[in-house]
Amino acid sequence: MSTLCEITLRVRYAETDQMGVAHHSNHIVWFEVGRIELLRQLGFSYIEMEQDGMNLPVVEIRCRYKHPALYDDEVTIRTRLAQMRSSILRFQYEVERKSDGRLLAEGESVHVVVGRDMKKTRLSEKYRDALLAAADEDAAES
Amino acid sequence: MSTLCEITLRVRYAETDQMGVAHHSNHIVWFEVGRIELLRQLGFSYIEMEQDGMNLPVVEIRCRYKHPALYDDEVTIRTRLAQMRSSILRFQYEVERKSDGRLLAEGESVHVVVGRDMKKTRLSEKYRDALLAAADEDAAES
Amino acid sequence: MSTLCEITLRVRYAETDQMGVAHHSNHIVWFEVGRIELLRQLGFSYIEMEQDGMNLPVVEIRCRYKHPALYDDEVTIRTRLAQMRSSILRFQYEVERKSDGRLLAEGESVHVVVGRDMKKTRLSEKYRDALLAAADEDAAES
Amino acid sequence: MSTLCEITLRVRYAETDQMGVAHHSNHIVWFEVGRIELLRQLGFSYIEMEQDGMNLPVVEIRCRYKHPALYDDEVTIRTRLAQMRSSILRFQYEVERKSDGRLLAEGESVHVVVGRDMKKTRLSEKYRDALLAAADEDAAES
Repeated sequence: MSTLCEITLRVRYAETDQMGVAHHSNHIVWFEVGRIELLRQLGFSYIEMEQDGMNLPVVEIRCRYKHPALYDDEVTIRTRLAQMRSSILRFQYEVERKSDGRLLAEGESVHVVVGRDMKKTRLSEKYRDALLAAADEDAAES
Repeated sequence: MSTLCEITLRVRYAETDQMGVAHHSNHIVWFEVGRIELLRQLGFSYIEMEQDGMNLPVVEIRCRYKHPALYDDEVTIRTRLAQMRSSILRFQYEVERKSDGRLLAEGESVHVVVGRDMKKTRLSEKYRDALLAAADEDAAES
Repeated sequence: MSTLCEITLRVRYAETDQMGVAHHSNHIVWFEVGRIELLRQLGFSYIEMEQDGMNLPVVEIRCRYKHPALYDDEVTIRTRLAQMRSSILRFQYEVERKSDGRLLAEGESVHVVVGRDMKKTRLSEKYRDALLAAADEDAAES
Repeated sequence: MSTLCEITLRVRYAETDQMGVAHHSNHIVWFEVGRIELLRQLGFSYIEMEQDGMNLPVVEIRCRYKHPALYDDEVTIRTRLAQMRSSILRFQYEVERKSDGRLLAEGESVHVVVGRDMKKTRLSEKYRDALLAAADEDAAES
């Protein structure tokens, strides 16, 4: 079973657009908030990872929008680590409206582990073990 | 042959993040700039479409990141209408660094046509004909 | 005594820039989050106000930056209604780092009350009374 | 006479909010675009300045909003260096709608020159001379 992380945000006025809904680019920012919170829940911060020379740039992002998030809605971002290879991480996300549990969007992001030189590297053991434990069992491969 | 639209933007300082590159959520905003420019090139504006009760909310977005866009880089967004059905539009995008022609990212977005009531509708003839002419021949279906 | 509203946010990665700090434009967004929270604390939401035809566009904004807010910092936005006239509201803000209580920025915003036609109007009694009670005594004028 | 820099942007859909206008935080980003363009016009880039250890963090920002900028409006940002001291720069901005020349907003920003250690420093001669030449004559002080 993978670790599931939940964090709730309130849609900001500045995030709305003139269609009267949260602009679709914000979901990508919310995914990141969820992903970072999952890392925090596993006991380490993304700052620390950057300082340790482990960066996780996004190489692919995908989002399917089901229903608009409205201004002032509280939205819960549910994040899990769906797949982990030596230098690839895949996270999955659900954005749910808190008030009625409606699924507003879902998506995923793929990350490659790079060092300070921006070249592909492997996660150091410290991160690898914690992340492996958090990943979906059947999806994790060393 | 589909109509291809090119527009060049300069990466803003506010768009960078502390990794020293344009944050990946900006590409989604740039796609939108490209898409709107393609519509303009076809002779109508998105404002007009909204006023005519033709909204094009994004139902799916995808981006693959190849190389980072850096602050002050001029990036060319190349947009084409890849597919068109009665109430579905699919656009494809390439983000290229102008100075050396390097492909930085590519992606696509899927849109459903909705009316003022946010219910699915069909494009009115005015838009349908212009878009059909702009779409990839083999991909367009009535 | 004016009503003071506090709300705590965490600086998002997407809010940082390549100087390694939260980009200064975000403080303006945080001010808005604080202002809306103050309204909520007074018992009404900004959505409701908009629906009642009471809009509060910003006519002036000012921010003095003392120390950078860093990624992942928890920052507390402290908002109070400093002045209120029949159709003008002035809010004041402080942005404080939660961990050490350091003042990172302070600012103010001035708003004019406009109706649906975007013309200057007066706050309806419902809002006026609640806001008067929340404003600094010496600063409130009918 | 101070050097005046003009650059024209088009308001992005993502920059609008549900009031149907460009959200007021974007003007702060546009000011930055204008400021950086002024530096470019003087023959050096902000990247170069950062690499030379000359950073210009914002210590104060102010904007007065006259009329809303609307989606798809072309807005001209007019920037000039209003004041220059050994380690303080003050820029002034006007945001004008291109189609009718209407002044939409005006503002200013104050910057302090800091080195790589984020401590206050003086501009090196290279930048100082170019900026002095660009500043308002009566406002420039060594």
